[in-house]
Amino acid sequence: MKRQIAVLTSGGDAPGMNACIRGVVRRADKMGCRVWGIGRGYAGLLDGEAQPLSTRSVSGVIQRGGTILGTARSDEFLRPERRQEAVRSLQEREIEGLVIIGGDGSLRGALELERLGMPVVGIPASIDNDLPGTDISLGVDTALNTALEAIDKIKDTASAHRRAFIVEVMGRNCGYLALASAMAGGAEIVLVPEVEIDVDSIIREYHRAHRVGKPHFIVVAAEGARLRALDLCEHLSLSRPGEEAFEVRLTVLGHVQRGGSPTAFDRILGGRLGAAAVELLDEDQHGVMAGLLGDTVAAVSLDELLAAPRPFPRELYDLAQSLA
Amino acid sequence: MKRQIAVLTSGGDAPGMNACIRGVVRRADKMGCRVWGIGRGYAGLLDGEAQPLSTRSVSGVIQRGGTILGTARSDEFLRPERRQEAVRSLQEREIEGLVIIGGDGSLRGALELERLGMPVVGIPASIDNDLPGTDISLGVDTALNTALEAIDKIKDTASAHRRAFIVEVMGRNCGYLALASAMAGGAEIVLVPEVEIDVDSIIREYHRAHRVGKPHFIVVAAEGARLRALDLCEHLSLSRPGEEAFEVRLTVLGHVQRGGSPTAFDRILGGRLGAAAVELLDEDQHGVMAGLLGDTVAAVSLDELLAAPRPFPRELYDLAQSLA
Amino acid sequence: MKRQIAVLTSGGDAPGMNACIRGVVRRADKMGCRVWGIGRGYAGLLDGEAQPLSTRSVSGVIQRGGTILGTARSDEFLRPERRQEAVRSLQEREIEGLVIIGGDGSLRGALELERLGMPVVGIPASIDNDLPGTDISLGVDTALNTALEAIDKIKDTASAHRRAFIVEVMGRNCGYLALASAMAGGAEIVLVPEVEIDVDSIIREYHRAHRVGKPHFIVVAAEGARLRALDLCEHLSLSRPGEEAFEVRLTVLGHVQRGGSPTAFDRILGGRLGAAAVELLDEDQHGVMAGLLGDTVAAVSLDELLAAPRPFPRELYDLAQSLA
Amino acid sequence: MKRQIAVLTSGGDAPGMNACIRGVVRRADKMGCRVWGIGRGYAGLLDGEAQPLSTRSVSGVIQRGGTILGTARSDEFLRPERRQEAVRSLQEREIEGLVIIGGDGSLRGALELERLGMPVVGIPASIDNDLPGTDISLGVDTALNTALEAIDKIKDTASAHRRAFIVEVMGRNCGYLALASAMAGGAEIVLVPEVEIDVDSIIREYHRAHRVGKPHFIVVAAEGARLRALDLCEHLSLSRPGEEAFEVRLTVLGHVQRGGSPTAFDRILGGRLGAAAVELLDEDQHGVMAGLLGDTVAAVSLDELLAAPRPFPRELYDLAQSLA
Repeated sequence: MKRQIAVLTSGGDAPGMNACIRGVVRRADKMGCRVWGIGRGYAGLLDGEAQPLSTRSVSGVIQRGGTILGTARSDEFLRPERRQEAVRSLQEREIEGLVIIGGDGSLRGALELERLGMPVVGIPASIDNDLPGTDISLGVDTALNTALEAIDKIKDTASAHRRAFIVEVMGRNCGYLALASAMAGGAEIVLVPEVEIDVDSIIREYHRAHRVGKPHFIVVAAEGARLRALDLCEHLSLSRPGEEAFEVRLTVLGHVQRGGSPTAFDRILGGRLGAAAVELLDEDQHGVMAGLLGDTVAAVSLDELLAAPRPFPRELYDLAQSLA
Repeated sequence: MKRQIAVLTSGGDAPGMNACIRGVVRRADKMGCRVWGIGRGYAGLLDGEAQPLSTRSVSGVIQRGGTILGTARSDEFLRPERRQEAVRSLQEREIEGLVIIGGDGSLRGALELERLGMPVVGIPASIDNDLPGTDISLGVDTALNTALEAIDKIKDTASAHRRAFIVEVMGRNCGYLALASAMAGGAEIVLVPEVEIDVDSIIREYHRAHRVGKPHFIVVAAEGARLRALDLCEHLSLSRPGEEAFEVRLTVLGHVQRGGSPTAFDRILGGRLGAAAVELLDEDQHGVMAGLLGDTVAAVSLDELLAAPRPFPRELYDLAQSLA
Repeated sequence: MKRQIAVLTSGGDAPGMNACIRGVVRRADKMGCRVWGIGRGYAGLLDGEAQPLSTRSVSGVIQRGGTILGTARSDEFLRPERRQEAVRSLQEREIEGLVIIGGDGSLRGALELERLGMPVVGIPASIDNDLPGTDISLGVDTALNTALEAIDKIKDTASAHRRAFIVEVMGRNCGYLALASAMAGGAEIVLVPEVEIDVDSIIREYHRAHRVGKPHFIVVAAEGARLRALDLCEHLSLSRPGEEAFEVRLTVLGHVQRGGSPTAFDRILGGRLGAAAVELLDEDQHGVMAGLLGDTVAAVSLDELLAAPRPFPRELYDLAQSLA
Repeated sequence: MKRQIAVLTSGGDAPGMNACIRGVVRRADKMGCRVWGIGRGYAGLLDGEAQPLSTRSVSGVIQRGGTILGTARSDEFLRPERRQEAVRSLQEREIEGLVIIGGDGSLRGALELERLGMPVVGIPASIDNDLPGTDISLGVDTALNTALEAIDKIKDTASAHRRAFIVEVMGRNCGYLALASAMAGGAEIVLVPEVEIDVDSIIREYHRAHRVGKPHFIVVAAEGARLRALDLCEHLSLSRPGEEAFEVRLTVLGHVQRGGSPTAFDRILGGRLGAAAVELLDEDQHGVMAGLLGDTVAAVSLDELLAAPRPFPRELYDLAQSLA
């Protein structure tokens, strides 16, 4: 049995990280294993920032957005000798395992630490939902509902003015957040990095929608889409002579999508994955990520999962188009 | 190919029913199949209440709670001769398939109609999440978040007064909603119909929580739990001499859990299941329910799925206890 | 200039209390005056529970419901000798003024302390909105929006089933919360303690609403209304032969109305009243309540304001009826 | 008594407009006065777009954002001969009064129509809160809470990363929305058009905040502030050598601030002002705006109120600084 483990959050913050830390701490506590919380991700790991966490110290955090441990990017962590030092320092403190909560880059860092001899379990947390090996990442459900509430509000004002709105949502190179918020928001068009789309066909649809009397024309654009939201905004505006089409407006949702109290789904997922990570370490299963597959938590090798990108749900994309 | 189908919502309303109706209508429209909307569930089916639905007529409904078709219970539908008439009347109108959106009782009705020769596809919609054959039913995610918001609010006032609260949530004979909202809300205790729990152990925990200085003591109780919320309220109050324990309050969340704009998850699920139901009918697959298994929509025979109750997620219950 | 003051929250908690404590602390800090936070209201005052509060210690509380100081009822405080001791103990600690945030009962307590020689300023905080001397009390706006969200949700399910709902809201002997949430929620009927209403007229309206085809029939009932929600529920149900009228359901909103993150209005009001209380103490104006009159904060004598009940906004009630 | 009046919404849409239309229609209906709803503001007035509105046709709109009548800008309405035609056409239809719901520009248009002999009553509706003659305009409370929710979310992610965020909110030339959301959100700095602020002092505060260990640094910037959000973003970033200060991010909230279901306050205000407008017309009081002064609705001459800008609440601004 492990006597001491550590946990850190890294990369962009995602709602549910605190519920996950709580899961790690309480599950370990029940096993008699002590948990150290490392501040500011890998930066704090290098600087030796650690505090003991107890069942009481994670009381009242389940509903909070952000991360109580803090997070940061660290250029220094890219240097192998610094990572080596970090592992040595953890070993000197007799820390026998490390739970790393974060996205793609953070899990790559986790794999490096594993290779240096520190047993790690990763937990997928990223509003971009770009990680393979899990049906969904921590934070996606909350970010999606936040984006959706914004789209619902924008539809009100779009209908009042009979306008077109292009709404840019986050997701980096992954179109999931855009696709899902477009489907749920009843948008006319969605732009994702994974699918090439012809500007002219959008312009045609834009004019057709006005002609048949639609009250608004909503495009949800992933920040990573090849056709940029701003460019589409210009294309549509230029194609509009007089008042024969919708006026066009652009809204970039930005960082609001990261924050906020997590949804029930993200709180429960955080608790499940956090507890599972502790159990995996305890069973000497490491170098893995604890992900959600169907209705169960499963461990997937970090090595394998980071080798391939997450496949795009093309059939969902096609369905979105057929229901728009 | 089907030329005409009908859709109805039945039983308790669930958020996402409108997104689901929209999915049925738009998917069918794309196939050149006409959709009739039957009002007030089986009652309306018996009374011949039907209106044509078009892509335009389901515009703007995706974000609305309740059901635009209305729903009702129907005692008359229990009579075989009335059901026979209903099927005959559908056949006379040349309706070749029927999509039925509802819970356990509604799907039993669906199976009866199938047996009488009307091709049906059921869609699981019930905030109780008591249906087998699907990971989750339509409306559960929204109801869960509604219950959670209430629990979050109650925790504020519980902490301010250092009180115990017993919060009764819906779910009929199923403890899922209670279990999930208790986990997500960070409740100390959850009462579900599926697990017998000793009153004395709750009383002990109630006193222990006060002794160790917890700011509140939250019990989430399923409406179907054997130990009723109201009874527990009395048990705890009676065990409290003077101010040496938390004062106890009871809140019954009630019907607010049914309403409200659906979450992203329920809107997308509604769309997917609605579209899938149309495709199943089109492929002459009927007498089935379109459910969500893992990340895909799958058809399960109504006959089989209604034969056994949904299994209780015991490991989730145990996890809830270990994290509380 | 005061060098040391204290602040406490008392009675039922109200959203915005934390924003108010923050206002007291930060305004005093800017003046070079130290603030002690007294825990658990008058109970903590009697027990000598006090902690120093600084600008930093109230960081991050503005958005939180409940009260970081805790609140409680205290029977002991009713005894004059105990109050005398409390004042003596404050004087021994060289506390020169006391800010009391609470409702009717709390402000009566405040007046008693003032009479014993402790300079006090009261701040009206109560979701019941039953205090005169201010246009509105702290917490009302948040509670009202919470009740409204519940009513909006209930309307969804009421419309789906064509049902009548009786929704009981808080407010003790004051009908404001019921009236305002009924108006904002578009309810058909509102029951308040201040206006006698004839059961028969409600029953007639209930049947008329069904006859003319209304989709639902919503009654908002103040908990203090003479015609109790539960009784009305029975009256309506008994007047319903067969299906010729709406089925009737009752929902008691309960303690959810107290909690939750305060609205913008309550946060700003809390800050303004808290700061004003410090300024009043500093100007040796005490024995008063800092209330909101129109757009400005004004001091009203506690003595006078507690002598008369808050008048009922009859014209608003009449308007509600005319718009229903 | 008037037998026929008309109502229109004009300019930027504001939450509560539908509640206000409902108030106009239902109050008039009770008086036996018919109401015509004019579509798309002054543009629809010129085009003769009008539909009869009844108590039933405004059922279910109280909770909806946007405006069921639509709104638009109209360049043509600037031409006197077109306005003359519009008045003539209203008179030919025997419309005896016009209720105009909108902001500054819309009320200037209203005054022009009044001068041409059409009795008008204006209702202040604008999320910018830039209208004098009323304590607050319709839509401000909802927009403020929407901006606040976004700021709350951004604080989560700002704290997680220890970042500075500049959040640009709407308000055109008026700083109210920025000031109020900054106060309620607990922002460190607010930029408004009405107060000149020295960049260097902000930079100093930005560095001081980091030095003393604040978890974040939030600036709320009005879109009309002389120091633009984008420019401040650059100033701060340039003043940051290495990691000795907060990283800086910019978020422009944009059109989400206009939409969404109105708050209780805006629904009630809408109902009150709408009903009052009808009563004023009925009493032959026109050429006025129905505004909220303290707790009552009062009529202010359009002529006078449009002559002077709304004064800036300087003491609220000073308070915001003292509590930051």
